[in-house]
Amino acid sequence: MRVHYPDSMRGLIDELSKLPSVGERTAVRLAYHIISNNSQGSLRLAEAITGAIEQIRLCERCFFFTEDSSGLCPICLDDKREASVLCVVEKPADVIAIEKTRGYNGLYHVLHGLWSPLRGQGPEVTKLGNLLKRLRQELECDDTLGKSPLREVVLATGTTIEGDATALYVAEALNDSKITVTRIAQGLPKGGELEYADEVTLSHALQGRKNI
Amino acid sequence: MRVHYPDSMRGLIDELSKLPSVGERTAVRLAYHIISNNSQGSLRLAEAITGAIEQIRLCERCFFFTEDSSGLCPICLDDKREASVLCVVEKPADVIAIEKTRGYNGLYHVLHGLWSPLRGQGPEVTKLGNLLKRLRQELECDDTLGKSPLREVVLATGTTIEGDATALYVAEALNDSKITVTRIAQGLPKGGELEYADEVTLSHALQGRKNI
Repeated sequence: MRVHYPDSMRGLIDELSKLPSVGERTAVRLAYHIISNNSQGSLRLAEAITGAIEQIRLCERCFFFTEDSSGLCPICLDDKREASVLCVVEKPADVIAIEKTRGYNGLYHVLHGLWSPLRGQGPEVTKLGNLLKRLRQELECDDTLGKSPLREVVLATGTTIEGDATALYVAEALNDSKITVTRIAQGLPKGGELEYADEVTLSHALQGRKNI
Repeated sequence: MRVHYPDSMRGLIDELSKLPSVGERTAVRLAYHIISNNSQGSLRLAEAITGAIEQIRLCERCFFFTEDSSGLCPICLDDKREASVLCVVEKPADVIAIEKTRGYNGLYHVLHGLWSPLRGQGPEVTKLGNLLKRLRQELECDDTLGKSPLREVVLATGTTIEGDATALYVAEALNDSKITVTRIAQGLPKGGELEYADEVTLSHALQGRKNI
């Protein structure tokens, strides 16, 4: 008789293996940790998972996370935010990253993915459609009532092929509108040395040069 | 107001960060996956964690995992196993690895750690003490009743400094006994080329040469 892990251990390993970038070996190591170390901590992990699933929703307007019963996130609910700027990002972690800079006080739209034709991922699997709808509503509202405060859309998707493609897609949709469309700057990162920068980055850094 | 993740998301990230080799960034990615993907799967993960904690115990004799109400694991309960050989390993995954070879039919003792004086980890934090006690009982039983079947202890800890130290520690404890103490062989791994083998491995491979 060949010996396997007990059923509940096997089940735990299988479920852990479904997490992104967790293979069989990592799953075994995590399962071993969960079982061996103090069970209080592991129960807290299980509770944190169920708690998060029950309580976290996506904001109905910008699709960042929220626990608020209004359906909107703290950013959309905050009336001190400038409604004239809308920053489009790929994922919720990008919102946190931009918030950490303390240099942005506008609204957001989280796409939860990028337009990736190479991977067969069209605009419909992300919140791109919702973004276009949101922008259309702003524009219509502006036409009929002259009330929309939106003046600028900042395309802050990553500078990958998919990030660029998605940014272009949104920019083209806003081609004929009065809204200014901007793309985050590309150039040398802080502390970067020219010698070690790749050609594309350096080329962008030169093209994007500014008066000092 | 700087925006953070909602409380339940933050809580989940914190709990995930406590897992081995999971940092803040990985925890955010895992938490995002847990929330975003189908909640059924994530609830199954939470249930697998609580289920495993509730059901899995360490075997009272060999400290491998068990769910059996007897307190013993399937290996210790299996009377087809040769009780004459005892294989000492570091962790439960090592039992599974040896079982996969189908080349061993004896019993095990899982140490759940190694003797690691450099990291200030003495024999007492592992099941080394339990192993010595188990061996003493076997020897006493042998002296008084002539009944212990144990003839060989295979030291199958890894070939690291800690693995070697632990093996030596056990070997010395059995110095004066009638039990044969063996250490797993060191040498070239299958498919290994001499050119790329390190000196210690090659030296062991030469010293351990056998007639063919």
